[in-house]
Amino acid sequence: MAELRYPDRIYRLQQTLRRRKLDAMLVTQPHNRRYLSGYRAADHGIQETAGVLLIPAAGQPLLLTDSRFHLQAGEEAPGFRIELYPRGLKNRLQQLLPRLHVHRLGFESDYMLHATALKLQAMADRISLTLVPITGLVERMREIKSEEEIKAIRKSVQRNEQVFQLVYNTIEPGMTEQEVALALELTMRELGAEAPSFETIVAFGENAAKPHAVPTDRVLRTGDLVLVDMGLVLEGYCSDMTRTFVAGKPDRTFRERLRVVRRAQLAGMEAIRAGVTCREVDRAARQVIARAGYGEAFGHALGHGVGLAVHEEPRLSSRSKKKLRPGMVVTVEPGIYLPGWGGIRLENMVVVREDGCENLNQDTTFLDI
Amino acid sequence: MAELRYPDRIYRLQQTLRRRKLDAMLVTQPHNRRYLSGYRAADHGIQETAGVLLIPAAGQPLLLTDSRFHLQAGEEAPGFRIELYPRGLKNRLQQLLPRLHVHRLGFESDYMLHATALKLQAMADRISLTLVPITGLVERMREIKSEEEIKAIRKSVQRNEQVFQLVYNTIEPGMTEQEVALALELTMRELGAEAPSFETIVAFGENAAKPHAVPTDRVLRTGDLVLVDMGLVLEGYCSDMTRTFVAGKPDRTFRERLRVVRRAQLAGMEAIRAGVTCREVDRAARQVIARAGYGEAFGHALGHGVGLAVHEEPRLSSRSKKKLRPGMVVTVEPGIYLPGWGGIRLENMVVVREDGCENLNQDTTFLDI
Repeated sequence: MAELRYPDRIYRLQQTLRRRKLDAMLVTQPHNRRYLSGYRAADHGIQETAGVLLIPAAGQPLLLTDSRFHLQAGEEAPGFRIELYPRGLKNRLQQLLPRLHVHRLGFESDYMLHATALKLQAMADRISLTLVPITGLVERMREIKSEEEIKAIRKSVQRNEQVFQLVYNTIEPGMTEQEVALALELTMRELGAEAPSFETIVAFGENAAKPHAVPTDRVLRTGDLVLVDMGLVLEGYCSDMTRTFVAGKPDRTFRERLRVVRRAQLAGMEAIRAGVTCREVDRAARQVIARAGYGEAFGHALGHGVGLAVHEEPRLSSRSKKKLRPGMVVTVEPGIYLPGWGGIRLENMVVVREDGCENLNQDTTFLDI
Repeated sequence: MAELRYPDRIYRLQQTLRRRKLDAMLVTQPHNRRYLSGYRAADHGIQETAGVLLIPAAGQPLLLTDSRFHLQAGEEAPGFRIELYPRGLKNRLQQLLPRLHVHRLGFESDYMLHATALKLQAMADRISLTLVPITGLVERMREIKSEEEIKAIRKSVQRNEQVFQLVYNTIEPGMTEQEVALALELTMRELGAEAPSFETIVAFGENAAKPHAVPTDRVLRTGDLVLVDMGLVLEGYCSDMTRTFVAGKPDRTFRERLRVVRRAQLAGMEAIRAGVTCREVDRAARQVIARAGYGEAFGHALGHGVGLAVHEEPRLSSRSKKKLRPGMVVTVEPGIYLPGWGGIRLENMVVVREDGCENLNQDTTFLDI
């Protein structure tokens, strides 16, 4: 099965390239590169690539890289012809493309620097090549997960919940947000995660009013609410989960607000099934919060796709008319943010199925206060 | 002193802008942004910015960001006027630029996506703005470190060596590459580093033949060589160091090859002083390795600049005619990589001075086998 997934993805991409009258496509985005080839090397930012794929509309795909990655590329992408570029990528392309009879070359406009595109264009002019900017092509393939990918994501979600539970049991008044965040990230590594899938958010009390709070040295006091938003990367696949609870006994206000958020989350999950638009799902959850009088306090979209990237398509946003399809994996994360008081967000990940959704999270602590 | 560094940098940049007949410049590259403003927020990749600087050729500079970063921006960049862009950056620029009488706007061509530049151009057309692509302008300012910056880098290097020594003393047969890498990264965090400056490399035996090896579950056996390439970020500044040693008693082959690499490193350091070109330094080290018969086994450049970024200008490469200048900080890291056997790399960081170089590394264990 593992051997089939890359040829199948390449085959589908090649069909699209032929339909678009492209002779080949250059894949520079690291998650797209991994998705199509299995090559796992990480880039040090967009300026230091570990290699690019050159996918011809027919025939064997190529992985272009430098000598540092030669062995790794050969091991991880066995279906690819590995080509090195000792004199730079543009130089190598200038030799390769005419030999491969490439006249129209697609490139990822949303993962190529303006400066690089200028140089690529100068090279293209020398060999009468037409460059065609492409956006979102492989990203759209990545939206629909195979059962094998869903298995990997489920594993990532389960590991993330394990980490959360281990650290949750050690949280006590006197700890700072930074200490809790560090404990979470250390535990992720100890339990085998490659990395956190994003910078862990831990916010106490009024700090939770910022949806993207960065952990501070704020000390936990009894009665404070605690918001934890965390995820990890396992075998390439990301998880993302948020829980909000109280250090000690939750008061009535907290309980009421948590219930609103939880009901919004359930309404969102209820609305998810193949064929429904993203904005319908967002609206189903948003209505619950608005009716409880907190409409203004929920400023972000309801959710986003998760896969090789922690934020990917589709977006469960009030503006998206995209229709959900089976195999999409999205977060459902309504929230209420009240400056001066704090914030509550609950986030699960679900798989879109034909007639509903499958909740990937098992952790239900705090959800039924 | 700390208060003076940002106004001084802005002043020097504004002089350059006026010389180039630019009315303003948009700074999107996160290290450049921090270098000019003190604003420390991190971007989640090039597609999710924490804000951009708008530096007019004269007058107060602006920091444009969104509501999530409003407080942080004001605290960290007190000399800047903070502007939010609730309806997006392009929209805000379209209002601001005519008011600031900006007709020619520079932008960082090597830190703007092709797709973003297309959208910016569409906006520019609406307000008769000329966009001027700029490359390497702030990066060239960053090449030369002030004594204050060198102090910060020295501190980062020392902390990195401390971490190395602590973990080195715990390495023993039976551990995996991943376990050693994890111990290094945990110790970095415990000793106050913000983060590793790149993914820590730990490679045993034949795995060290890959210059950019990713740690695996390969178990350490007595007699294996161990290559560790590690760095951390402390107060924004990076360190980067490589050591290669043996678990147990090094055999003759290892000792000979280590000596070749060490002599190459010393030859490189010897060649460094203000006025010498980067390629002369690369050649001085490369010759030693070539004469010992390992020329083919040294496939990468001799070194690179280090500062706010772990890889920055200048590059000690065989192709670079750039002249070294006092205050540049570079790595000197020759290596020999032999598939099937393993690899040896030694890496120190040095400051370029008028008549030589200052070695920032104190750690000399293993260098005199």
